[in-house]
Amino acid sequence: MGKIKEIQQFLQKENIDAAFITTPDNVFYVSGFHSNPHERLLGVMVFKDAEPFIICPFMEVPDVKAAGWSFEAAGHEDTEDAWDVVMDAVRKRSALPTSIAIEKSHLTVERLERMGQLFTGTEFFRLDEQLNNMRNIKSEDELVNLRKAAELADYAIEVGCREIAEGKTELEVLMAIEFEMKKKGAEKMSFDTMVLSGLKTASPHGTPGDRKIQQGDFILFDLGVVYNGYCSDMTRTVAFGEPTAEMREIYETVREAEQAAVDLVRPGVRAMDIDKAARDVIDAAGYGDYFTHRIGHGLGISVHEFPSMTGTNELVIEEGMVFTIEPGIYHPEITGVRIEDDVVVTADGVEVLTKFPKELLIIQP
Amino acid sequence: MGKIKEIQQFLQKENIDAAFITTPDNVFYVSGFHSNPHERLLGVMVFKDAEPFIICPFMEVPDVKAAGWSFEAAGHEDTEDAWDVVMDAVRKRSALPTSIAIEKSHLTVERLERMGQLFTGTEFFRLDEQLNNMRNIKSEDELVNLRKAAELADYAIEVGCREIAEGKTELEVLMAIEFEMKKKGAEKMSFDTMVLSGLKTASPHGTPGDRKIQQGDFILFDLGVVYNGYCSDMTRTVAFGEPTAEMREIYETVREAEQAAVDLVRPGVRAMDIDKAARDVIDAAGYGDYFTHRIGHGLGISVHEFPSMTGTNELVIEEGMVFTIEPGIYHPEITGVRIEDDVVVTADGVEVLTKFPKELLIIQP
Repeated sequence: MGKIKEIQQFLQKENIDAAFITTPDNVFYVSGFHSNPHERLLGVMVFKDAEPFIICPFMEVPDVKAAGWSFEAAGHEDTEDAWDVVMDAVRKRSALPTSIAIEKSHLTVERLERMGQLFTGTEFFRLDEQLNNMRNIKSEDELVNLRKAAELADYAIEVGCREIAEGKTELEVLMAIEFEMKKKGAEKMSFDTMVLSGLKTASPHGTPGDRKIQQGDFILFDLGVVYNGYCSDMTRTVAFGEPTAEMREIYETVREAEQAAVDLVRPGVRAMDIDKAARDVIDAAGYGDYFTHRIGHGLGISVHEFPSMTGTNELVIEEGMVFTIEPGIYHPEITGVRIEDDVVVTADGVEVLTKFPKELLIIQP
Repeated sequence: MGKIKEIQQFLQKENIDAAFITTPDNVFYVSGFHSNPHERLLGVMVFKDAEPFIICPFMEVPDVKAAGWSFEAAGHEDTEDAWDVVMDAVRKRSALPTSIAIEKSHLTVERLERMGQLFTGTEFFRLDEQLNNMRNIKSEDELVNLRKAAELADYAIEVGCREIAEGKTELEVLMAIEFEMKKKGAEKMSFDTMVLSGLKTASPHGTPGDRKIQQGDFILFDLGVVYNGYCSDMTRTVAFGEPTAEMREIYETVREAEQAAVDLVRPGVRAMDIDKAARDVIDAAGYGDYFTHRIGHGLGISVHEFPSMTGTNELVIEEGMVFTIEPGIYHPEITGVRIEDDVVVTADGVEVLTKFPKELLIIQP
């Protein structure tokens, strides 16, 4: 529960009475309990000077305890007003807080209006940056899970390559990967696994389907695995049979761009510099118009989290940050190629978590 | 685009200048475009007296068009402020709205604060009830998709039953089901498929794993399929080999409770009456303490939507509503059993969408 203490220190420093954490991933971060509450109320309330509690659906109380939460778990039944349960738990601990830090990028207007009625006269402050800053820098415990999630993703790509065969559909390859992952003990995939072949690779957000793999195709795998609540997210593009010269050129451009970005990662460079390192390579090769998204995004409990690695983000990279590097070229008439690694910023450079080779792999039919 | 017209009529009636729709499922409902924007801005702005537009990530503009959206799709790049794009689109159409209806149960405090700065002096109203009321009553087009989603779920249960065998793990059965669903053209499962066996059935939110199926087990399937954006959600519990007398008693109690609730469904009864019909049967059999959740929830584009079928909801049921009926008994020492159907309220009764038999099915080892 070191995270709770860190939030209490923040409250003391800012002289705010309480914090209410409601993003499911942040609830997990501070409590160890991971759940999608749908429309039900789930949150952790931390006090400057009193014990925290978690408010959760009644039937999840045992799961909260099993997840290691050692403070009060206040369960609310579907038939009662969850806010009554919150107020009871608050009153047991302290006078009504006169200032509460909330996650303004997550808490809904409706819930804030309700809190405004219940905590009359209370001022509300932002908690977002505090939580983002904490989550931005991964602890060694978190890195252990991220390394394992990346290792599983590497293996998933290996399985995918093994499954590729003439006439197999994208979905067949995809299901074989997911089955193998579940057998390996992966909780779940971080997002819908993508297996795209032929010209479908040229859609950055394509949907795998019944298309049959043919000789001469590039096959793009974009996938990730959740391990102990932490996500990987990686992409590899491989060839089935001989690719054309144009396909090779696009592949090598993306590979060079990706490597240029990875090589730049170290404390002190800015997010935008890393984006630019890759974009310059792709621009120089004449494919600039076909690289239509940012270089990457932060990765951890969420598959998309801070920092956002865009061409305009001046954020200075620090040791312990984890993000993806994933340039792509999407040429609707030739092919799409994307290569994506997960990287950790180390004291003096970079640790690449995803290790599946990036030289063009040509699978022989 | 009849939905857009309906929202315009609402704006005219309430004399509100514009509506901003941001829940991804509601964006789909009014635009036909389904997407999870993660932290990026996605929304549909509807005006009392001007053409609507959708604001979306730039790279999704082609998908928006392909989904049938015939109005402007304003794309924002990751490198620009999405709100600049919103304001440009607004200014092209009208003077700044002085009143905007928003989804207070979805829009974040941060976004409302931003809108408050951009639309100076604008008043914000609730749009939630209008959208809920629209979505609460399913159109015939929507029912076509819901029927198909339920049919696929029925088939998924059939596949699951076929796959059950001594020593197979829960995950093996689960993956076989999901593979078959993808082959059948299901977009995706509505939620993480649940296959639980033995005493794991006694956890309403259990996680499938490596447990091997054994003779004498109950096996609980809870699953759903998305078809054309619409969800099914059903549960069946089956036996592998002979169950004990106590297991049978629990099964028959749940079956009777479920049927009592289904039989009560018609326009004019209240949600709480339907809950009570099932709960009374379970209470009378002495298992009341083991039925720990509401009788069901609305179903449509979201797998959990309105109405919430709790024991305290006085909502009067109307023709066209669709919800689940899913009583369960979770006895930690004997077994868990849940039976769940998807039902539509008809003019004078009920149409049950999920048709897999509810008599206790005993699969012979």
